Amino acid sequence: MTSIQEIASKYFPGTEPCRCGGAHSICLNCAKCRADEPDELYTPGDPIASIIDATVLKADATDDDIRALCATANEHDTASVCVNSHFVPLVKKLLTDSVKSCTVINFPLGANSRKAVKKEAKAVIEAGIDELDMVQNIAALRSGDWQMALETIKSVAIQCLENSVLLKVILETCYLSREQIILSCLLAKKAGAKFVKTSTGFGSAGATAENIALMREVVGPKLGVKASGGIRDKASALSMIDAGANRIGASSVTALL
Amino acid sequence: MTSIQEIASKYFPGTEPCRCGGAHSICLNCAKCRADEPDELYTPGDPIASIIDATVLKADATDDDIRALCATANEHDTASVCVNSHFVPLVKKLLTDSVKSCTVINFPLGANSRKAVKKEAKAVIEAGIDELDMVQNIAALRSGDWQMALETIKSVAIQCLENSVLLKVILETCYLSREQIILSCLLAKKAGAKFVKTSTGFGSAGATAENIALMREVVGPKLGVKASGGIRDKASALSMIDAGANRIGASSVTALL
Repeated sequence: MTSIQEIASKYFPGTEPCRCGGAHSICLNCAKCRADEPDELYTPGDPIASIIDATVLKADATDDDIRALCATANEHDTASVCVNSHFVPLVKKLLTDSVKSCTVINFPLGANSRKAVKKEAKAVIEAGIDELDMVQNIAALRSGDWQMALETIKSVAIQCLENSVLLKVILETCYLSREQIILSCLLAKKAGAKFVKTSTGFGSAGATAENIALMREVVGPKLGVKASGGIRDKASALSMIDAGANRIGASSVTALL
Repeated sequence: MTSIQEIASKYFPGTEPCRCGGAHSICLNCAKCRADEPDELYTPGDPIASIIDATVLKADATDDDIRALCATANEHDTASVCVNSHFVPLVKKLLTDSVKSCTVINFPLGANSRKAVKKEAKAVIEAGIDELDMVQNIAALRSGDWQMALETIKSVAIQCLENSVLLKVILETCYLSREQIILSCLLAKKAGAKFVKTSTGFGSAGATAENIALMREVVGPKLGVKASGGIRDKASALSMIDAGANRIGASSVTALL
């Protein structure tokens, strides 16, 4: 099995050593160096609710579903509420100050053009979101055009950095090989994202502890790792945390707590 | 059962008679009046292939899948090839002149903000597409905000009219009541779209002959009606045509012919 460092060196030839502790070992010359930032790791004892993104993204959701979601999020003081961008104004009206607003772009298929993704990012950032979960360019990555996949993340990451929006990159691991998962983590980190995330919840499979562990190993402690897709009870959430996740996406917040 | 005309009058009070033959009967004051345009109906005897949008929209599609799709489309001379926007440049390179390029926006969840949809439309129109299938704002419509649903279509329709791009509005009928289907057809027509379309293929159900007949009745002969979602053989395609469809979206083009 090819090591993470060998894969990193294949795509990003360089000799400078890594300063941030990722298993890629070489410096990726990230758009934003996170070496001096605090670790993005779960602190044992922290309430599980504080790392949950309370999520409703289904096509048939209505204002009423989003109101119920925000009430739950406020009650348990979750990390954020994650909704499709139509609902951002409603969410911003309903959430208490401590719960962040989060939306998704290039979602869920990960096959929009770089330009479309860039413009969609602009529109949702202008709506005032705190966090943004973008699906990476799966189409480009799986077709071998990883440079386009990198450019797509970059064009969003720049806007997020300028506007203090926390960017998570959804890999959609169910459609990726081990090498593609590793490469995707490297691309997200290099582009300047703050988190890597496993799944949309609309693919053929969701988060697995194995993929969380791999993603954490690749990115090291300075980036966050979010587990999402199919996490419906406390045991699953805990196994993701054990594997290295410091954020959990979940629709069934109450069941999970 | 409330008649189509009663529903039309409820949302768009007016007394001017319809000039284009829709069962709404009243004039909708459409952004583009189509009364003097030729009918958008299937002409018996026309090859089925000529009304097929050969479609691949799945998240795990690669360049190779799109190359195969274009080869099939060129061979059978389909109406168009419909792909996610990442693949538009590839498609435009591969298609013969008679096969149109088509992409999708606000897809497949129909829950993006109006601004995000408007910007996404701009990006894909600039990429030079011939046809655009947009999912309507399902989230707004199902939450009772049909004015926002109308505005969302309008903001795309204006751009399509200016750039001679044929606009189809995907209703996603599986999540709509009869009244919501009728209203959605009225909104698409009023906003200046050229086609109404049943489904994304990602919802809980696809096209039914019953919904096609209803949609055709509402819009009349001057708008097109596209059946999509779950149409995998010739018998299904023919039943959609019988019910009033003049365009078919299909992934399994060869099986269908």
